[in-house]
Amino acid sequence: MQKLIKGIHQFQRESFVPLQGLFEQLAKGQSPDTLFITCSDSRIDPTLLTRTPPGDLFILRNAGNIVPPHGAGGGEAATIEFAVAGLGVKDIIICGHSHCGAMKGILDPDQLVEMPAVAAWLSNADSTRRIMKENYSDLEGDRLLSATVEENVLVQLENLRTLPSVAARLAKGDLHLHGWVYKIETGQVFAYDVESSQFLKLTDCDPPVEPAVQHRKTNLI
Amino acid sequence: MQKLIKGIHQFQRESFVPLQGLFEQLAKGQSPDTLFITCSDSRIDPTLLTRTPPGDLFILRNAGNIVPPHGAGGGEAATIEFAVAGLGVKDIIICGHSHCGAMKGILDPDQLVEMPAVAAWLSNADSTRRIMKENYSDLEGDRLLSATVEENVLVQLENLRTLPSVAARLAKGDLHLHGWVYKIETGQVFAYDVESSQFLKLTDCDPPVEPAVQHRKTNLI
Amino acid sequence: MQKLIKGIHQFQRESFVPLQGLFEQLAKGQSPDTLFITCSDSRIDPTLLTRTPPGDLFILRNAGNIVPPHGAGGGEAATIEFAVAGLGVKDIIICGHSHCGAMKGILDPDQLVEMPAVAAWLSNADSTRRIMKENYSDLEGDRLLSATVEENVLVQLENLRTLPSVAARLAKGDLHLHGWVYKIETGQVFAYDVESSQFLKLTDCDPPVEPAVQHRKTNLI
Amino acid sequence: MQKLIKGIHQFQRESFVPLQGLFEQLAKGQSPDTLFITCSDSRIDPTLLTRTPPGDLFILRNAGNIVPPHGAGGGEAATIEFAVAGLGVKDIIICGHSHCGAMKGILDPDQLVEMPAVAAWLSNADSTRRIMKENYSDLEGDRLLSATVEENVLVQLENLRTLPSVAARLAKGDLHLHGWVYKIETGQVFAYDVESSQFLKLTDCDPPVEPAVQHRKTNLI
Amino acid sequence: MQKLIKGIHQFQRESFVPLQGLFEQLAKGQSPDTLFITCSDSRIDPTLLTRTPPGDLFILRNAGNIVPPHGAGGGEAATIEFAVAGLGVKDIIICGHSHCGAMKGILDPDQLVEMPAVAAWLSNADSTRRIMKENYSDLEGDRLLSATVEENVLVQLENLRTLPSVAARLAKGDLHLHGWVYKIETGQVFAYDVESSQFLKLTDCDPPVEPAVQHRKTNLI
Amino acid sequence: MQKLIKGIHQFQRESFVPLQGLFEQLAKGQSPDTLFITCSDSRIDPTLLTRTPPGDLFILRNAGNIVPPHGAGGGEAATIEFAVAGLGVKDIIICGHSHCGAMKGILDPDQLVEMPAVAAWLSNADSTRRIMKENYSDLEGDRLLSATVEENVLVQLENLRTLPSVAARLAKGDLHLHGWVYKIETGQVFAYDVESSQFLKLTDCDPPVEPAVQHRKTNLI
Ligand SMILES: [Zn+2]
Ligand SMILES: [Zn+2]
Ligand SMILES: [Zn+2]
Ligand SMILES: [Zn+2]
Ligand SMILES: [Zn+2]
Ligand SMILES: [Zn+2]
Repeated sequence: MQKLIKGIHQFQRESFVPLQGLFEQLAKGQSPDTLFITCSDSRIDPTLLTRTPPGDLFILRNAGNIVPPHGAGGGEAATIEFAVAGLGVKDIIICGHSHCGAMKGILDPDQLVEMPAVAAWLSNADSTRRIMKENYSDLEGDRLLSATVEENVLVQLENLRTLPSVAARLAKGDLHLHGWVYKIETGQVFAYDVESSQFLKLTDCDPPVEPAVQHRKTNLI
Repeated sequence: MQKLIKGIHQFQRESFVPLQGLFEQLAKGQSPDTLFITCSDSRIDPTLLTRTPPGDLFILRNAGNIVPPHGAGGGEAATIEFAVAGLGVKDIIICGHSHCGAMKGILDPDQLVEMPAVAAWLSNADSTRRIMKENYSDLEGDRLLSATVEENVLVQLENLRTLPSVAARLAKGDLHLHGWVYKIETGQVFAYDVESSQFLKLTDCDPPVEPAVQHRKTNLI
Repeated sequence: MQKLIKGIHQFQRESFVPLQGLFEQLAKGQSPDTLFITCSDSRIDPTLLTRTPPGDLFILRNAGNIVPPHGAGGGEAATIEFAVAGLGVKDIIICGHSHCGAMKGILDPDQLVEMPAVAAWLSNADSTRRIMKENYSDLEGDRLLSATVEENVLVQLENLRTLPSVAARLAKGDLHLHGWVYKIETGQVFAYDVESSQFLKLTDCDPPVEPAVQHRKTNLI
Repeated sequence: MQKLIKGIHQFQRESFVPLQGLFEQLAKGQSPDTLFITCSDSRIDPTLLTRTPPGDLFILRNAGNIVPPHGAGGGEAATIEFAVAGLGVKDIIICGHSHCGAMKGILDPDQLVEMPAVAAWLSNADSTRRIMKENYSDLEGDRLLSATVEENVLVQLENLRTLPSVAARLAKGDLHLHGWVYKIETGQVFAYDVESSQFLKLTDCDPPVEPAVQHRKTNLI
Repeated sequence: MQKLIKGIHQFQRESFVPLQGLFEQLAKGQSPDTLFITCSDSRIDPTLLTRTPPGDLFILRNAGNIVPPHGAGGGEAATIEFAVAGLGVKDIIICGHSHCGAMKGILDPDQLVEMPAVAAWLSNADSTRRIMKENYSDLEGDRLLSATVEENVLVQLENLRTLPSVAARLAKGDLHLHGWVYKIETGQVFAYDVESSQFLKLTDCDPPVEPAVQHRKTNLI
Repeated sequence: MQKLIKGIHQFQRESFVPLQGLFEQLAKGQSPDTLFITCSDSRIDPTLLTRTPPGDLFILRNAGNIVPPHGAGGGEAATIEFAVAGLGVKDIIICGHSHCGAMKGILDPDQLVEMPAVAAWLSNADSTRRIMKENYSDLEGDRLLSATVEENVLVQLENLRTLPSVAARLAKGDLHLHGWVYKIETGQVFAYDVESSQFLKLTDCDPPVEPAVQHRKTNLI
């Protein structure tokens, strides 16, 4: 705690002054363009990663960057609704990461015996677990974990689409969803690419151009 | 009731005999290819509509052909899991219909004051309601109701995709989802067509050929 | 799917025309007298069994013909409320059946390891399971399964009575409840008979004559 | 508080000694024959009313002597299961009372605006409310309140029957259910009498003789 | 039952008359000062223990004298809200007791295999279980059970503080919370003493004098 | 999005290199000392505020920095359990902030008509709302909002204490809870001070010295 308190004093002496104008402006109201959903993991810093100043990212963080589907209630549905319907964000990013402890818990439930609330929470990633089990029996170790992180981002995007405020904006075509994975040890970001059905390094992805309503076309055969 | 009891006797005298061999065979086990999800409405008869004999359709029916997303529990998740993971069905059809009372309830909640369980149930169609409100303000009357029936089929398909047994089979590519609307007064069936982003008369749709895994590609920008 | 699509075309060519007048009439509104609750099993066809035309039966189907008690919410409570309070049905039939997969799941939970949603759903038949365990330890095999099917129909009828719309109509005396079991291999229907405390072949039952309010008398010692 | 503390000292000086042997015996274990469910109302004292010593009555008390049906979970289901399956009680009494504040809340929800937890709790008496509304529109004032108290006892008995431990013992025939109403101002107790379908003064009721399994016969037409 | 009915007649003949004036007065309305929360155990009689007449104690009883935190709903939240916001009680006592069966269930979950509703209910004492496990590994037998009873009273007091009606009155400073343990075999009552951080015999405790708002000060470092 | 992607490239070119050693170390595992719970608001940046590098703060963010009590489940309970029981953090900070949109929603529910998930979520701040209503009727405007932010931090700390992993560590005395409020426009941080019962500027607070077990003493009169 003493370290944190010193940090705050340092912030107040050094960092606040150059940002003072911005903060005074922001005190009148925020209007972020992006909702950034990521894990609570201490090794991820969304504003450092994107080099964004205060005011740009509305940030939702929990263990495993999980979004329960509509009906579960809870902080995720509320925070997303506030961002989408209240603040009118234009993009939602779900950003998983390498070495995620929650994903390890999905693969090895025995780790969770003393953490029943975590185990219950991961029921929102039951699809991730079942996808891995039925489709990736050939993988193990780091490669299995990496694939789990990726599949979980896709699963949580499916869950996200069931939230009414999101569904209504997707039908309108003015909200875009993005699936990312951040690799802690290299600083790389991988984004899901629809054409290749893979996560590609962010630079290799085409920038998003089509309206979201396009996706509705392609839900079904 | 007397009418029903007479009907059963008539079934036993007239209809059972020609089907006796089939029924005796089926008594050893069922293996339907299709899960048919439709409304409880008395005007829809899935086996009449598809001219299928006993054993072909596993049938889930409730008010509004609704599928709560994963996490809500309930009979729908269980019945679908039983069909997908237990029986290995290859296709799931969600079939809405014209003049649906549940959809009227979505558009006019005042009708539901004395039906609180129906009102609560329709929270699983909150996305339908919000999509209609934010995107179809120009429609009213029959056209609004028809559009609601169609959008609700798409919303329930999104919910369906969050069920783990469904998600795992979709990732594998051996399960296909279909969105239909049945028009009571004409006997027509309309199926959602991905290319045109519309519900088309069933004859005008291309038959489904691609594996379901394709759809995953197109979830995102 | 091709088989179903052919069936629909056959329906449209052959079956629709003789029913066209009925369907056009029904398009103006339904008024079924009976709510028929049965299993999703592909081997049961309520309209075939009762030889009823479209419009006669409001049909609720799920795995195990289960009715969660009041408070659980879900599609069953909503569909029943819609039938009872919205459509004014006069009779409710809960119809179990021989060889029911859900009932097998009650007796052998090990079958459900890969079907957690089914296992959770069957908690609404916990009374069935406990009744079997504490009262039928002498039965096994087919006879145990048959007794389970019967007891479950009675348990679900108890659950049904806790739904407010049902309770209010039962107190009024103008709603009747019926417990049936359908035997796939013989086409027979057995109905619960109060006097003998048994399920009897439908022909052997006295037709229902007393008002439902009578039953309230006999709830208690 | 000072009054209570004085009372406890008085208990220890005066009341404990004559009961010391009983209390020392009871410290080894309880085996009450009866589960007594009543309201938290300060004007009811079950042990005073029945003149029973410590050890005879297992007592469940909440606002409105309410028993949520199976599936709701909560303290009532647990306490009843403990009494029925753990302690093997032979009788369960649900005892409502005159002037019950919870029942007033059912009839006049406006009283509950500042008591949302009470309002939510009374959803377990939705059947009571709906029965009153649809069947007792001719009553008002004290007579309406008295009828509500009585009907609520019957509704809660229906809920009670959905609890698995209760259902299994009822099927066995060795558990008996009783519906009572206590009138504060006169000390009278009224018990539901099956034959006359009325609450009668306890002395006027025939003592219970039939096994509970009898009731199952009469559930249905 | 015959014993209870005889007891009621004895109450009516002997006990009611001296209390008739009080009961007639109470029929006009109750205004208890204290909410007494205790276990359903047949060996505890709150009015005997405190020598209080009808009208003094509003009494909530369930297995384990448990209070689920805000959000769980159920009879406890409702009953407490009714007492605090409706009746304006000034003190709430949570009273555990020696030899409590529910506490034994916390320590030995194997006892609860046939009592799933009890097991689920005790999740509201998960903190008790975890506190015991992580802090009392040196205790066993009676001493472990006694410590569990005490810690559980403290845990339930924490839960109690999350109820909005309680929190608002605590902030105001006119509601007092008390943690007690009753020892069946000796008739002793122990009350939690803040200064010594122990449960002390009631006589040895200083009477409560400070306003509840004081406690808010000391929630945090 | 283009701005974010540019930011990421800038991060990779400029910020990653000096942190590369740290990130490679962290890829082997995290061990943060502190769980920092704050609002999703885009104007708060916990790592900027405390000048901490990646790896120091485990961060939970949702609308309103809310912690549902034990039993509600959800991402908050899981994330906190993971931090406390899995990672062994030593301090938990709940940090509210000036101009919080969620707190405005508590004070003016009409703003939430189109945001039902937010409205439902704020039920976890029902105590905040009730405390404000019953104790701060003299405040309005900015002062009312500021007081609401502060009281909500205290309410969420109470909720936090009901989580079993937290309760067990508090009983052990090696976990410390802190209530903070961050003022966007000035960069100031206020911390709840037990002695004065007020939020004081962080510099004016005594550093925390006592073990958490002390707080248990002072829960009660
Ligand atoms: Zn992670
Ligand atoms: Zn319909
Ligand atoms: Zn079946
Ligand atoms: Zn009462
Ligand atoms: Zn006890
Ligand atoms: Zn905020």
